[in-house]
Amino acid sequence: MSAVRLGEISELEAEKQLISLVRRAPFKDLGFARVDHHRAVRQGFPEVIFGLGKTPEQIAEIAKSIVAEGQSLLVTRTDEEAYIAVRNVVQNVCFHKLARSITQNKPMEPTGHGVILVMAAGTSDLPVAEEARVSAETMGNRVDTLYDVGVSGIHRVLAEEERLNAARVIIAVAGMEGALPSVIGGLVKIPIIAVPTSVGYGSSFGGLTAMLGMLNSCASGIAVVNIDNGFGAAAMASTINHLD
Amino acid sequence: MSAVRLGEISELEAEKQLISLVRRAPFKDLGFARVDHHRAVRQGFPEVIFGLGKTPEQIAEIAKSIVAEGQSLLVTRTDEEAYIAVRNVVQNVCFHKLARSITQNKPMEPTGHGVILVMAAGTSDLPVAEEARVSAETMGNRVDTLYDVGVSGIHRVLAEEERLNAARVIIAVAGMEGALPSVIGGLVKIPIIAVPTSVGYGSSFGGLTAMLGMLNSCASGIAVVNIDNGFGAAAMASTINHLD
Amino acid sequence: MSAVRLGEISELEAEKQLISLVRRAPFKDLGFARVDHHRAVRQGFPEVIFGLGKTPEQIAEIAKSIVAEGQSLLVTRTDEEAYIAVRNVVQNVCFHKLARSITQNKPMEPTGHGVILVMAAGTSDLPVAEEARVSAETMGNRVDTLYDVGVSGIHRVLAEEERLNAARVIIAVAGMEGALPSVIGGLVKIPIIAVPTSVGYGSSFGGLTAMLGMLNSCASGIAVVNIDNGFGAAAMASTINHLD
Amino acid sequence: MSAVRLGEISELEAEKQLISLVRRAPFKDLGFARVDHHRAVRQGFPEVIFGLGKTPEQIAEIAKSIVAEGQSLLVTRTDEEAYIAVRNVVQNVCFHKLARSITQNKPMEPTGHGVILVMAAGTSDLPVAEEARVSAETMGNRVDTLYDVGVSGIHRVLAEEERLNAARVIIAVAGMEGALPSVIGGLVKIPIIAVPTSVGYGSSFGGLTAMLGMLNSCASGIAVVNIDNGFGAAAMASTINHLD
Amino acid sequence: MSAVRLGEISELEAEKQLISLVRRAPFKDLGFARVDHHRAVRQGFPEVIFGLGKTPEQIAEIAKSIVAEGQSLLVTRTDEEAYIAVRNVVQNVCFHKLARSITQNKPMEPTGHGVILVMAAGTSDLPVAEEARVSAETMGNRVDTLYDVGVSGIHRVLAEEERLNAARVIIAVAGMEGALPSVIGGLVKIPIIAVPTSVGYGSSFGGLTAMLGMLNSCASGIAVVNIDNGFGAAAMASTINHLD
Amino acid sequence: MSAVRLGEISELEAEKQLISLVRRAPFKDLGFARVDHHRAVRQGFPEVIFGLGKTPEQIAEIAKSIVAEGQSLLVTRTDEEAYIAVRNVVQNVCFHKLARSITQNKPMEPTGHGVILVMAAGTSDLPVAEEARVSAETMGNRVDTLYDVGVSGIHRVLAEEERLNAARVIIAVAGMEGALPSVIGGLVKIPIIAVPTSVGYGSSFGGLTAMLGMLNSCASGIAVVNIDNGFGAAAMASTINHLD
Amino acid sequence: MSAVRLGEISELEAEKQLISLVRRAPFKDLGFARVDHHRAVRQGFPEVIFGLGKTPEQIAEIAKSIVAEGQSLLVTRTDEEAYIAVRNVVQNVCFHKLARSITQNKPMEPTGHGVILVMAAGTSDLPVAEEARVSAETMGNRVDTLYDVGVSGIHRVLAEEERLNAARVIIAVAGMEGALPSVIGGLVKIPIIAVPTSVGYGSSFGGLTAMLGMLNSCASGIAVVNIDNGFGAAAMASTINHLD
Amino acid sequence: MSAVRLGEISELEAEKQLISLVRRAPFKDLGFARVDHHRAVRQGFPEVIFGLGKTPEQIAEIAKSIVAEGQSLLVTRTDEEAYIAVRNVVQNVCFHKLARSITQNKPMEPTGHGVILVMAAGTSDLPVAEEARVSAETMGNRVDTLYDVGVSGIHRVLAEEERLNAARVIIAVAGMEGALPSVIGGLVKIPIIAVPTSVGYGSSFGGLTAMLGMLNSCASGIAVVNIDNGFGAAAMASTINHLD
Repeated sequence: MSAVRLGEISELEAEKQLISLVRRAPFKDLGFARVDHHRAVRQGFPEVIFGLGKTPEQIAEIAKSIVAEGQSLLVTRTDEEAYIAVRNVVQNVCFHKLARSITQNKPMEPTGHGVILVMAAGTSDLPVAEEARVSAETMGNRVDTLYDVGVSGIHRVLAEEERLNAARVIIAVAGMEGALPSVIGGLVKIPIIAVPTSVGYGSSFGGLTAMLGMLNSCASGIAVVNIDNGFGAAAMASTINHLD
Repeated sequence: MSAVRLGEISELEAEKQLISLVRRAPFKDLGFARVDHHRAVRQGFPEVIFGLGKTPEQIAEIAKSIVAEGQSLLVTRTDEEAYIAVRNVVQNVCFHKLARSITQNKPMEPTGHGVILVMAAGTSDLPVAEEARVSAETMGNRVDTLYDVGVSGIHRVLAEEERLNAARVIIAVAGMEGALPSVIGGLVKIPIIAVPTSVGYGSSFGGLTAMLGMLNSCASGIAVVNIDNGFGAAAMASTINHLD
Repeated sequence: MSAVRLGEISELEAEKQLISLVRRAPFKDLGFARVDHHRAVRQGFPEVIFGLGKTPEQIAEIAKSIVAEGQSLLVTRTDEEAYIAVRNVVQNVCFHKLARSITQNKPMEPTGHGVILVMAAGTSDLPVAEEARVSAETMGNRVDTLYDVGVSGIHRVLAEEERLNAARVIIAVAGMEGALPSVIGGLVKIPIIAVPTSVGYGSSFGGLTAMLGMLNSCASGIAVVNIDNGFGAAAMASTINHLD
Repeated sequence: MSAVRLGEISELEAEKQLISLVRRAPFKDLGFARVDHHRAVRQGFPEVIFGLGKTPEQIAEIAKSIVAEGQSLLVTRTDEEAYIAVRNVVQNVCFHKLARSITQNKPMEPTGHGVILVMAAGTSDLPVAEEARVSAETMGNRVDTLYDVGVSGIHRVLAEEERLNAARVIIAVAGMEGALPSVIGGLVKIPIIAVPTSVGYGSSFGGLTAMLGMLNSCASGIAVVNIDNGFGAAAMASTINHLD
Repeated sequence: MSAVRLGEISELEAEKQLISLVRRAPFKDLGFARVDHHRAVRQGFPEVIFGLGKTPEQIAEIAKSIVAEGQSLLVTRTDEEAYIAVRNVVQNVCFHKLARSITQNKPMEPTGHGVILVMAAGTSDLPVAEEARVSAETMGNRVDTLYDVGVSGIHRVLAEEERLNAARVIIAVAGMEGALPSVIGGLVKIPIIAVPTSVGYGSSFGGLTAMLGMLNSCASGIAVVNIDNGFGAAAMASTINHLD
Repeated sequence: MSAVRLGEISELEAEKQLISLVRRAPFKDLGFARVDHHRAVRQGFPEVIFGLGKTPEQIAEIAKSIVAEGQSLLVTRTDEEAYIAVRNVVQNVCFHKLARSITQNKPMEPTGHGVILVMAAGTSDLPVAEEARVSAETMGNRVDTLYDVGVSGIHRVLAEEERLNAARVIIAVAGMEGALPSVIGGLVKIPIIAVPTSVGYGSSFGGLTAMLGMLNSCASGIAVVNIDNGFGAAAMASTINHLD
Repeated sequence: MSAVRLGEISELEAEKQLISLVRRAPFKDLGFARVDHHRAVRQGFPEVIFGLGKTPEQIAEIAKSIVAEGQSLLVTRTDEEAYIAVRNVVQNVCFHKLARSITQNKPMEPTGHGVILVMAAGTSDLPVAEEARVSAETMGNRVDTLYDVGVSGIHRVLAEEERLNAARVIIAVAGMEGALPSVIGGLVKIPIIAVPTSVGYGSSFGGLTAMLGMLNSCASGIAVVNIDNGFGAAAMASTINHLD
Repeated sequence: MSAVRLGEISELEAEKQLISLVRRAPFKDLGFARVDHHRAVRQGFPEVIFGLGKTPEQIAEIAKSIVAEGQSLLVTRTDEEAYIAVRNVVQNVCFHKLARSITQNKPMEPTGHGVILVMAAGTSDLPVAEEARVSAETMGNRVDTLYDVGVSGIHRVLAEEERLNAARVIIAVAGMEGALPSVIGGLVKIPIIAVPTSVGYGSSFGGLTAMLGMLNSCASGIAVVNIDNGFGAAAMASTINHLD
């Protein structure tokens, strides 16, 4: 090896870090999936099962593996059929129809430090908002909700300023032009996770318009997740809410 | 001709209409342009010179032809060089620098029935807003303006509700996420012409994001013109303001 | 508070306006929706139920709440199933199949000052044109219609110049290249609301081509609403038609 | 070789055709370019020099090579600097400033059977229209022109119906919403080559809107070339005009 | 009227032209459609029924009206159900399954001067190619076909050079990258109508890639119609093939 | 007012909230701008001057107004010319060349609770990363940086895991495919603000590819701001870092 | 023929090459398809049947024709129905359900020189990865697979470095942000074929985001095929793996 | 640690691999850049300096650091100014003007096993083709070139079949519709790296059309790199050409 040295840490230190990385990062190879059992340690929450494109059997098998490790169960983008499959192998599971999610009921004390407020601009945004709510609760957060508060009736938002200020993080869900986070962003000093939804028609282009609107918000303290990604917003919000 | 008859008007009537159409629709062929002198009769305002892509000489020649007919002069998307060329052939012309427009000063009583209110979300939207103002005034309208009232400081808009309600038509100019018309649209019952601007960066895509946002507004009583089209908004607003 | 003062109104005045805003802006919280009963005062027409993504039961419950307030009922983007649910809780309702809309029949004198002319370029544009017609009539306007007058048979448009000029506002509905408003725009001096439709195939891209064409119209006095947004066009046209 | 036989021609025949293909298809390798001297035989017109991205020296050298073969010279998308370089090596060359093209003046009898009519919607479309005109003339066609006849002043088009019908092919050049071909297409029974131009702003997206509009035309007998492609339209029109 | 005169024709002449326009341009108002019976005179072929978005009853009624005028029948983008409806009111109709078209069988001598060659790059492009063939034949043209001759097996094209040269117009149908017209364009000196198809997957984006490829062809003598628009290609080809 | 009641708060309470809203929300009208002096209270940081599209004089005047209020100064997207103008009216200002920002030097104790780590994938991403750093520091945060740690040399990231875990929030800046946040997201349990940059060429489309990549990250705990929006990322990170 | 000579080969030589081209390039015209039986010689693998858009009968007939020539059978993008049709005319066929492919079982020694490693980022990418595996095996390659190794759990990739280095070519399949090839690209010095999949939602836009991400990879030694094109990746990998 | 075990390798083995990864992966931290000196071992070629967005001084400093390690120098996307800066600190450097690249002249025996053939469709594609050539040569490959062989003159390609077959890898560079790889792909059985260029205008959209065309090629054995990415194509080709 030449005289060139590692940037800022010694080689030995680097070695140690990497060894420790492998040690604490086990995974279970199910053939069709490598369940990342270490994620709870590394990221604060165990692997979540994204249901889309998985068979009920696959979902049930992964769910079983997660629960066997004593970890919390969360299946998103799923349906009743998968619920039945999971129910056969895991006890006390619950299907959240509107949120299209499966969780396991177990007594749990919220571990997050504050309240996550989930806001939805319209009634049609509820499936995404509810996915965010269920996800956030399963991740150990207290959640408040405020639905159908679109900006065309601005007084419905202004009337709730108190609940806005009581939250530690806001998840703002909106389709169409996605203006809700911009208006909220100007009223509060807590972080806002903006979730564009595919609600709309014509040139809403499946949520693209809302997503672009949110990314170009003239307000600050706002960051954006993918279209319809209620779970992703909850994960970000929960990460923030668990910061000491 | 077969037994098939014209739909709902007699042939004779149709003939008369079309003859009259030709009679009252003269134009002047300058070679590079066919100046539509009849437009003032047909549309309520004479042909406007769109300066982009025309030489100062072409602009001056068309301007001269329009003024010679005793019609109002308006050149948009133009610059000082064209102004100098026009000044040589037309008297009392004025160059509006911010609005990038040329008009002819002449005493004129507003013919529109109410006030057109031009709102701009940010300071950078002023060139488009001013183009709208100058155009609307030249078309015979009283104009009020309200600038830098973006939705991230919603109290700056709410504080002006009185002036909003005093207008007969509103032109709402905004770049970035273009949320201004949605918020205004929920507060008033007069028509709003929304003008997206190319103000912004990154995924504002030259005004596309603002334009899509406005077209997907959750509020009603809003219609949209092309990006940066201050003149087009003024023409629409003036047409509305001149309705009896 | 520092020496910095409010821009142009006194603080007291601002307070008064805001108080009055809240006073006259009630809403009813149904849980899944906050019905904005104040909208009729604020915007000239009560809240309209956008049917897409709502269950028949939700639609019926909101409809009942609106009618109970003595307000006009309009449900758009809906179907027969929702109609049956509404019929059970509201009297004298009518389902407009082609327009995919539900209204309540009640004797009503038009309150708009003139006639709104709804034009459609082709037979396939009729659902959108009819949504505009039903919406405009429910909002208190007299409506005339002129269907299948696309620009490739320009004589079919020219033959109707008289009816064009008899209108106070025109709603021009077109798919494909969306050229109808450009041609009409050159013939009349009344405002035109252009409605692109998703009619077409291939590179019509679900109405995008028509929408862009309308926004780039070389004629003036035109503004555009979202693709297939017959209701939005009617709301804009009605707002204009009710201006004194 | 297996029992499988060539589809519809004998092998011998195929051989002959391919031999003849090579025989009559010479090219000259200049290192940076392979000048296709056979193109005049194969396609009815010699290789045209597309100036964009070529140095004046390269253009001059290719021009010299073409003229040495006794073929017609046409350089498109070029400028005065290239003109000077070409003038040094080729006699009697002419620079068409507006059309940004170089040709060689030589007495030539039109070989096309009819007249190609070049129409332009606006004054700003002239560079593209003139490129089409110069190209078509150089390819041996008689050309008529009709400029500034946009659809917002439809009478300017209708007044020229006679000249429309006198043509054998029409080249319709338009920017913005590109509606000109749709209107013309409904009036004549000769082929129309539609050329979208990059004239416009905002959501014209450099000619995309005009191009999409033309491709979605509700009229028939229309086909489209690339944005600003005046030469391509002329080549298509000339090919048609030379059909026996 | 001022001293400004009409451009190049006298007013009287203009009047005459317009009167004649109306005289020879009748249409029949069916309520939901205005059948343009004059189109055969004006454009060389009667109105064609675009089936998409029309009910079987509407199609049958328009078909009956066209046949009653003694004109040729062509319904495109249609299905068996519409065929049954048409069969009840029009005699001797034929349903072309692959081409999704309905025509009326009647002895007809081709009126076009040459042969239209329809080429398809792949087997999956056949529905579009067949729509072009049926349309072209119904418009009075002799048609030859050459299918599955994509450029990845270039010898399949080169082997058919004779049939290429025997045609007067070529319709080149291709999906995926749409390179067929570019290769053919370099071999022949007759006009090529390029038809992109929606065949492909992934980044073919429903034919957009093929369409853009064709518009940017490096060969000349090519013009493009909308994606999957076999009829449009046939109309253009037929217009060319009927030129004297 | 009807029997309909406000949703969840009494009218009186709403009034109080709104009055208080006005009271604490003053702004200063400079004519071309309405400086929002209340923002520091409402959002935790005073109004920031976005330099793009403002003249040096406008920037200087707003800067003076902000400093006069005793608030922190931050000008982004600016240049040396504006710096000179500001220096004339504000003391102790500093121009950050790479970050294209102006701040006022004043002794300040960080108020944020932890460290914000700014990571940049490549050397070309530094202007955006530095804008984030300067902005975050001005907002009262301690900032660490880690530059040129793109994922194609993954060991350069892994070697720094300790510094990653020492941060409370990470700002991950990357152009091209924007994969940095995905890799980091799998290693830490603190929130990541992803900033796409316009660094790249060809199909990077000015940062669009990086932005879409980040929004579709398979890791969780990530949210995205606009392309090149270093300031926006800092504002979000600072908001999080100031949460108790 | 003029003095111009063929570039670098003599005419005679060219003739010979072209004759030989025809001789060894037979095809079989089935009417709806021209089966290219020569492809195995020219490209190293016989024509593959792309099942999408073909009827079971067409697939069976082409399959029969290929097997009759003694060539290997591969049908991609197909289903059980086609399998049954093929089974009736070809012996020993096998349907790979997950890979949606049909092959013929026959003892075959791998002809490729090394191992092709197929990697998939997630479980949902398996259909595309399996299509690549089956295709590559049928083309005579040994294949190793490594599934569910997405970059958010980077240790799952790092743990397999040995198997990465044992391969001669890697096929990296990933949806969402498509970052897998970038990370792998930094670890190995063998070619990587990147396959974006349509796995994802919202702004993944059917695989566009993954495709753009891969094309903009900051790592080198990577090239990309179309979205979901497992077969195309296998063909490229096999071509490389068969190089001497 | 639970009973869950690592998938397929033992922990110990994993540890060893990772330690070895760090050991052999040094980098040098220049502050603004972390030069990856290990890349030559890991990827077969040292770090290449991408010049875009770097100052001449930064380029010179990195170049010096690379040469000091005894590694080959390659700077791409650079200019004369950077060349002068590099020349001052590194001996025997050479500036390739057309290729916009800097290399160091030193006697070097090609290490690749065959010839890389670089093909360019048009003269304007030469900068990209030359970047590929210079890069490939610097990486130790023999390179042949074949320029101006676009598909509209297909005989120019067919005449060179021998040189096509003599290559081990082909780099096919093309702008406009990008059809070159499709045609070549049908003629050879060696891998083709397709490079779209930004050559073209109008709807070529800066190379997007060529890129999409290449990704959708109907031929196989083709993979694609980013627009104008001559270096990337060379890296892929060289990786293939160095496979044993």
